[in-house]
Amino acid sequence: MLKCLGLSSGRKLVRVLEHPFCAKQCQMLANEKTARVIDGKSIAEEIRSAIAGEVRRMKECIGKIPGLAVILVGQRRDSQTYVRNKTRACEEAGIKSVMAELPDNCTEDEICNALSSFNKDPSVHGIIVQLPLPQHLDEGKIFNVLSLEKDVDGFHPLNMGNLAMRGRESLFIPCTPKGCIELLIRSGVEIMGKNAVVIGRSNIVGLPASLLLQRHHATVSIVHAFTKNPERITREADIVVTAAGVPNLVRGNWLKPGAVVIDVGTCPVEDPSCEHGYSLKGDVCYEEAIRVAAAITPVPGGVGPMTIAMLLSNTLDSAKRTYNFT
Amino acid sequence: MLKCLGLSSGRKLVRVLEHPFCAKQCQMLANEKTARVIDGKSIAEEIRSAIAGEVRRMKECIGKIPGLAVILVGQRRDSQTYVRNKTRACEEAGIKSVMAELPDNCTEDEICNALSSFNKDPSVHGIIVQLPLPQHLDEGKIFNVLSLEKDVDGFHPLNMGNLAMRGRESLFIPCTPKGCIELLIRSGVEIMGKNAVVIGRSNIVGLPASLLLQRHHATVSIVHAFTKNPERITREADIVVTAAGVPNLVRGNWLKPGAVVIDVGTCPVEDPSCEHGYSLKGDVCYEEAIRVAAAITPVPGGVGPMTIAMLLSNTLDSAKRTYNFT
Repeated sequence: MLKCLGLSSGRKLVRVLEHPFCAKQCQMLANEKTARVIDGKSIAEEIRSAIAGEVRRMKECIGKIPGLAVILVGQRRDSQTYVRNKTRACEEAGIKSVMAELPDNCTEDEICNALSSFNKDPSVHGIIVQLPLPQHLDEGKIFNVLSLEKDVDGFHPLNMGNLAMRGRESLFIPCTPKGCIELLIRSGVEIMGKNAVVIGRSNIVGLPASLLLQRHHATVSIVHAFTKNPERITREADIVVTAAGVPNLVRGNWLKPGAVVIDVGTCPVEDPSCEHGYSLKGDVCYEEAIRVAAAITPVPGGVGPMTIAMLLSNTLDSAKRTYNFT
Repeated sequence: MLKCLGLSSGRKLVRVLEHPFCAKQCQMLANEKTARVIDGKSIAEEIRSAIAGEVRRMKECIGKIPGLAVILVGQRRDSQTYVRNKTRACEEAGIKSVMAELPDNCTEDEICNALSSFNKDPSVHGIIVQLPLPQHLDEGKIFNVLSLEKDVDGFHPLNMGNLAMRGRESLFIPCTPKGCIELLIRSGVEIMGKNAVVIGRSNIVGLPASLLLQRHHATVSIVHAFTKNPERITREADIVVTAAGVPNLVRGNWLKPGAVVIDVGTCPVEDPSCEHGYSLKGDVCYEEAIRVAAAITPVPGGVGPMTIAMLLSNTLDSAKRTYNFT
């Protein structure tokens, strides 16, 4: 049902073809109730405004502000957009941001040198390396250089181990899964004792989301490409967090009535009606899901804005820890 | 149905009371087929014999043997037994073992000093701190001192993070879950694409077992004390790994017919017919499970012997890595 098209940015653009069952089922469900939409944009704005207040208070009290350093490698248009959004958000919150831009064909050593210099810079409290990196670069080696105390993306394996182990605390929780949990909590969704399914097991979203949900005492099942009958497992879930990057993967009949759905997927899909010829689609067939779920995040405007808010939050926390400011 | 009794060793002894449903169901199922018993003792012996062969080859080729250091704190009888079994197994395999025994009331610094000295000792390739430690000691702080290259129990959070993350490799896989996977593989049980349930989420067994099963591409659900309807989730599993430490928790009607059951539980249960007044019981109601499952590990004689075999295997691997011996 899906067709991938190459994009100059390197990212795949997906064409979503006609979905006859989808249309039929939507019609059948037309008169049924509609899920509450979890407004990530407005929740993220609230959080960013609170962070801006904290940054002002910090500046007034100790004359310091948090600083974020961004390493951007290559010319991917999507990465450039993400980075621009992050630095703009910093600016709005009063957080200093600095950037190192490196060419597509740079070496691991050049990235590590940039990292080392940010590691040493006392005005930098958080460092992110915008992913994905060009294929010739070894992510693992590069992240090993990143100072644990500045790993505001929470991608270092020691951070992940501390997130996984009971009785330990990671310095930083990865931004996207942290945003998902924050959306659940701020929407009044109880997590403890609930069945949760995480679809996808990337290091950046699926894995830490499953670990975080367990920390909140959910019973977690992790669904991935090798799972047989993913719909059957998903249908048992009170909470579904999906981060597969496959538009329309999760159909209405995958969901238990009353489930809460957090859609992390953001895939550019061909859409001639949009200005740039494409629009962003989540993993969930929204039109179907909205008639089965109790609550759902839209795409865009759901998890996306929360990721940036959590990045600012982690950077602020890091600066507070550095200056012992509470 | 269970009653806990204190033991001088500090470990709980559990009395298992009469289980009317258990008896009735067993009678009903009396004529049905019986699961294959996965003989952990004999598989572990095979592995230990192969390790002994490798140790001899190493000695002949480079004049070195692997060395294991054990830190034992306090007088717990069960810990003393476990440590004795480990050092005996080392001896049989030709692995050198050294031990530091510290009193119940020792300080964290004393343990860290012992650790540091083993960290520096080039004839020691693996170090284990026998758990549990007395309550006044902070396990986390102590494990932070342990050299990653000698963490043959695989309990360091960096090892755990590397085990969790795709594209990364941990230096050591924790012994008990490694033993569980080895039992599955050597019994010809396919893991990829299967539904697996892990009961219990301890840092030592449940967590790494769930991460390892995911590495082998199983669809994993983690059941714990907050799980509602654990029997319903467990009944969906093709593979059940249970490490709850609650005798008879997993009943026959918790299992899908044809499931493979790995029982990590070993709880001392009052048993006047035994020499010491108690016997070891697993988490699984064995008499019921054996008539539903396709294969099952007994307790004792299932996972237990594998844990020690995997400890020897990790110690040998560490020595091979140190001397670059293949």
